[in-house]
Amino acid sequence: MSISRVSRRRLLSTALAAGVVAGATATTACAPVPAQSAEGDRSRDRSEWLARQLLGVDENGADLTLAYLKILIDTGLPATGSRKKIIVVGAGAAGLCAANLLADAGHEVTVLEANGNRTGGRIKTLRGVFSDPALHAEAGAMRLSSVHPMVLALADKLGVRRRPFYGSDVAVDTAMPLTPPVFYRSFTGEEWSNGPALDYRPASSARRSLIHVNGTTYTRGEYAANPAAVHAGFGCDLSEPSRTVLGAALRQTSLTDQPIQRQLDGWTELLHTYENHCLRRYLMDQGWSKERIETIGTLENLTARLRYSVVFPLVDHTLLPPDVTHWELKGGMAALTDALTRRLGPAILMGKRMTRLEQTDHGVRIHTTAETGTEHTDGAPAAPVESFDADYAILAIPLTAARFCAFDPPLSYDKRRAIIEMHHDAATKILLEFKTRFWEQGPTGFRGGRCTTDSPNRSIYFPSHVDDSDGGVVLASYTFGDDAMRWDSLTEGERLHFALSGLRTLFGPRVDTEFTGIGYTQSWVRARYALGEAAIPTPGQLHEHHRATRSVEGRVHFAGDHTSLNTAWIEGALESGVRAALELHRR
Amino acid sequence: MSISRVSRRRLLSTALAAGVVAGATATTACAPVPAQSAEGDRSRDRSEWLARQLLGVDENGADLTLAYLKILIDTGLPATGSRKKIIVVGAGAAGLCAANLLADAGHEVTVLEANGNRTGGRIKTLRGVFSDPALHAEAGAMRLSSVHPMVLALADKLGVRRRPFYGSDVAVDTAMPLTPPVFYRSFTGEEWSNGPALDYRPASSARRSLIHVNGTTYTRGEYAANPAAVHAGFGCDLSEPSRTVLGAALRQTSLTDQPIQRQLDGWTELLHTYENHCLRRYLMDQGWSKERIETIGTLENLTARLRYSVVFPLVDHTLLPPDVTHWELKGGMAALTDALTRRLGPAILMGKRMTRLEQTDHGVRIHTTAETGTEHTDGAPAAPVESFDADYAILAIPLTAARFCAFDPPLSYDKRRAIIEMHHDAATKILLEFKTRFWEQGPTGFRGGRCTTDSPNRSIYFPSHVDDSDGGVVLASYTFGDDAMRWDSLTEGERLHFALSGLRTLFGPRVDTEFTGIGYTQSWVRARYALGEAAIPTPGQLHEHHRATRSVEGRVHFAGDHTSLNTAWIEGALESGVRAALELHRR
Repeated sequence: MSISRVSRRRLLSTALAAGVVAGATATTACAPVPAQSAEGDRSRDRSEWLARQLLGVDENGADLTLAYLKILIDTGLPATGSRKKIIVVGAGAAGLCAANLLADAGHEVTVLEANGNRTGGRIKTLRGVFSDPALHAEAGAMRLSSVHPMVLALADKLGVRRRPFYGSDVAVDTAMPLTPPVFYRSFTGEEWSNGPALDYRPASSARRSLIHVNGTTYTRGEYAANPAAVHAGFGCDLSEPSRTVLGAALRQTSLTDQPIQRQLDGWTELLHTYENHCLRRYLMDQGWSKERIETIGTLENLTARLRYSVVFPLVDHTLLPPDVTHWELKGGMAALTDALTRRLGPAILMGKRMTRLEQTDHGVRIHTTAETGTEHTDGAPAAPVESFDADYAILAIPLTAARFCAFDPPLSYDKRRAIIEMHHDAATKILLEFKTRFWEQGPTGFRGGRCTTDSPNRSIYFPSHVDDSDGGVVLASYTFGDDAMRWDSLTEGERLHFALSGLRTLFGPRVDTEFTGIGYTQSWVRARYALGEAAIPTPGQLHEHHRATRSVEGRVHFAGDHTSLNTAWIEGALESGVRAALELHRR
Repeated sequence: MSISRVSRRRLLSTALAAGVVAGATATTACAPVPAQSAEGDRSRDRSEWLARQLLGVDENGADLTLAYLKILIDTGLPATGSRKKIIVVGAGAAGLCAANLLADAGHEVTVLEANGNRTGGRIKTLRGVFSDPALHAEAGAMRLSSVHPMVLALADKLGVRRRPFYGSDVAVDTAMPLTPPVFYRSFTGEEWSNGPALDYRPASSARRSLIHVNGTTYTRGEYAANPAAVHAGFGCDLSEPSRTVLGAALRQTSLTDQPIQRQLDGWTELLHTYENHCLRRYLMDQGWSKERIETIGTLENLTARLRYSVVFPLVDHTLLPPDVTHWELKGGMAALTDALTRRLGPAILMGKRMTRLEQTDHGVRIHTTAETGTEHTDGAPAAPVESFDADYAILAIPLTAARFCAFDPPLSYDKRRAIIEMHHDAATKILLEFKTRFWEQGPTGFRGGRCTTDSPNRSIYFPSHVDDSDGGVVLASYTFGDDAMRWDSLTEGERLHFALSGLRTLFGPRVDTEFTGIGYTQSWVRARYALGEAAIPTPGQLHEHHRATRSVEGRVHFAGDHTSLNTAWIEGALESGVRAALELHRR
C-alpha cells in the first residue's frame, strides 16, 4: 500500500511533467494538425466534468447523491406548478424510477415498454424455468453494493427484503446476520440513514471454493497460503495474492480521504492523464510483464476487459472501500422492478417498441410497433404502427437500441456519434439446475462464493441462499467481452453442454447425475431489447461520448445507467432516473 | 505523399530515440517489476520474426511465397519417403489445401468436417436461397486480391473462371476485360507466371455510388469534387479525400522499394515501435482530432476497428500497391473449395466435430460428435462419440473452435493463451434480393461498387456481375466489430427489416416494391463452427500470440488464415495449408 502510494504519485507527476499523454512526442511530426493545445484544453474540460459526475458534486458544491437519495426516498420531486404529459420509453430500472417520481409529482405519465411480457430490462429474475418451481435465478443483475445507498434504501422502502450476497464462499452453517440500515455520509459532512445503526459484521470467507488454472485445482485457502505456486503455472514469479497486486497498481491512495476540492482536482488530473489508456497499457506502464497480466487477468476475471478504458478500474479500486459488501433481494432482483411496476399500474403499456420519434416546438410524437415475439425470438417485423403524443419524453433505453430508431429532426452530432460509437460489451450467463447442492456437502463444502477457472466457464457462482428446495441453480459461467463472445457463437444446447463439462473438471462426474437437465443461457448481446450488457468504454470514449449520452435534445431527455458513471449498476440507473425526472420536472 | 514520407521517418526516429514504447516513462515508478530490457529484447525478437513472416523471408533468405506458389501450383510436395496416416480437422480453404497436397504426395489422408452439409468454412456461397434460382451471393469471402498469387493461380489451375470484382462502381455498360495471367515478382528478382502477359486495364470508376452521412446524400463524384463539404458535416476541416489522408498517415513510404534486408530491418523497427498501438492511438499520435478520426472512420468504414492493432492497417497501406484490383469467381467463391473438395472425394467425412484430441509418442486419436443441426441451429449436444486414429494431425480450425476441445496432454502454455485471448472479430452481412437491379437504371445508374453511410448499414455492396437474371442480390449491410454487434443483437427478421430501411434512405420507397421478400443474414460470430470472422489482434496480441498459433504440438500441426499474416484472406489460408503440409511431410 505504501509502495503504491509512492509509485502512483511519482508516476503521475512524471507523466504530467513529460507530457506523456498518448504520444505527445509525435504531434510535431505530421501533416496539417489541429492545434494540440485546443484539443488538450478540451480534454481537460471533459476531465473536470467527468470528475464532478464521478464524485457527485454539482456546480454549487452540493452532493448530488445525497440530493437524489432524499428525492427518491424521502420527499419525491419538489411541488410542481404545471402538469405535463410525459412519455417514458423503456421500463428498466431507470425508466421505472423516473416514471414513478413524475407520476407521484402529479404529471400524466405513460411508459412504453418493447418487451411484451416483462419489465425490468437487465434486471431479469428467472422464475418457473427450473424443474423445481421453488427455485429462481438471476439472468441479469444479481447483486447490490453496500456503497450504493439509493438502491438499498429503495428496496427497504418498497418492503423488498435484502440479504447478503456472498461474493466469497462462507461456511455452510453461516447464520444470516441482522440487516443493517442504509447509511450514507456525504463529503459535506451530512449523514443520511433509514434506521438506527447496527453492529454489522459480514460473514468471513471459508476459502473452500476452487481455482482451476493451467491444469491444476486449488482451494482459495491454498492459494492464500501460497500464491506463488499458482502463479508459477503462468511463468509469473509474484508472491502476493492477485487482488493485493491489482489493488496496489490501481488504487489512487493520494485521492482518498481528501477535501472534496482536492479530490476533484486529483481526479481531473488523473482522468486527463489516462483518458486514452486501456487497462493493459496502464499495467504495462507500471512494468507488468505479459505473464503477470495473464496471471492477474485470469485470477481476477479481467482478461476480456484489458483493452477497455482504465478509468472504471481506477474508479472501482479507488472509490470502493476494501470492506465493501454485497446484497441480494429475497425472491430475486426483479422484486424491486416488480414493485415499481405495480405502482404505475395501467400507465405501463407493454409490447410497444419505439421506432421513430418526432418533435416540434410543441410536443413529441413516438411511433411504435406492436411486438409479438419474445425478447429472444422474432416478432413480426412489419407489425402495425401506433403513435403516442406528449409534451415531453424520457428515453430510458440503451444507446444501442436508439441506433435502430429514426429521429425527426435528427439528434445532435455528438449524440449521434455516442450512439454509433460507444462500445457495449458482451456478457453471457449460463445457469444450470442441480438436484442437490452437492458443493455444500461434506467437509470441503461451501456456500455462495465463486470458483475461478481458465476454462471457457471463467467464473462460476453458487447461490448464497436457497429457499424451500434441496436443489440449487449454479451460475456455471459468467463471462464478459471476448470470453462471452466465445459462448455467444454456440447454440443454446451447446452452451449448456460445454458449461457442464467445465463443472465436471472441478467437481467430477457427479455433476452429470446431479444435473436436472434444465438450464438457461442469457447472452446480453443476443437480447433484442438490451443489445449488450452495458456501455463499457474503450480508451477515450468516456471523454468523447459520455456527456452527450445525457444531453437534452429539445423536449427529449435521456436516462439509463449508461448516462451515469455507475454504469452497469442498478444504482446508476436510479441515479439517472432521478436526474432525468428532475430535469423534466423543472422545465 | 512527400509529406508522409518525411513525417513518418521523423516520427519513427523520434519515437525510437525517446524510447516511447508504451509508457517507458513509468517503468521506474513501480513495485517489483521484471527487467524492462528483457521484455524489450523479447519484443524485438518477436518483431523480427513477425517481419520475416510478413515479407515471406525464410531463415536462408529465400522467398516463401514463391516457394509455396510453386508447390501449390507446379510441383506439389517433394517426393516422399514414408507414407503417413494423417487426419486434417476442418474443411475450410486451409484444411482442403493441406489435405490435397498431402493426398497427392501419397499420404493416407482423412478430413473431418464438423458441418454436416457443406465444406468451405468462411467461404460460403448462398445458392438456391433466393426466389430467382439463378442468383447466388456471398455470405463469406467475396473477393480475391490481385496481390495474392496463390489463390488466383489455384483458381486458374482448377478451371474456375475469374472476373473483376468492382470495389468501386463502374458504368453499367462496362465491358468485361480479358483476364490477365497471374504474375508474381519475388524480392529475389525471380518471376513466376501462369501465362503470357496481357495489357490489362481495370475499369475506371463511374463515381455514381452514394455516400450518406450526417443526413445528406452525395455521389462519390460530388465527394471527389468537394470533399470539404462532406467533411464539414463532421465538424472536420479536411479538404483532401479520406482515402488520401488515411494513406498518407499509414503508408510507410520509406519501407517500399528497398532491398529486402532493409525492408526486414525497417519492419522490425516499426513492429517493435507500434507493438502496443491501436489504430486510434496511432492516428492521435499524428495529431488527428476526434472529428477527423470520426470523419475518416466513417468514410473508410474503420470506426469499429479503431481499437484494434495498428499493425494490419500499416501493412495494408504499405505493402498493397495503389493499383491493387480484386477478383471474384464465376458461380461464386465456393467454386474454389468445391473443386478442392471433389478432388478429395470420400476422404472427407462430414458432420464430425472434434471434441477431444489425445496424443502419445506413437500417434493421435481424435474424438468427434456426430453433428446433426445446421451451422446455425442446435444439434444434439450429447450425440454419440466416434474416434479416429492417425500418425499425425493438422488442426485447420479457428482458435475459437479449439477453445471448446479437450487436449490430452494439454497444449503448451503459449498455445493455450493464444486460444484464450486472441480477439476474433464480429462481421455481419445482410443480403437482400431485388426483382430488378434498380440501382443500375437511368442516368444515375451504376454497377458494382459500394455505398457508404453512417446508418447501421455502413457499407452496401452491389453485384459486379449477374448471370441469367433481371434481379440481383445486394449486400445491404457489411459491418465489423461493434457495428456488427449492433446487428447481432437483433433477430433475423429485424435485421432484414432495418437493413431495408437503410436502403430506403438512399434509394427511396422503390426498394419496398423491388424487394422480393427474400433475404439472408450471416453473423460470423453466431456461426457455431466459425465462432467469429477472423483473428483480428488488439494491441500487443500479434507479438504475444501470433507465433504460438502455428507452433507444432507433438504430432499436431496447425493451419488456418489466423496462423498467417494474411489473416481473413483466402491467400492466408492457402499459405498456411502449404506450410503445414510441408512441415508434416518433412517429418
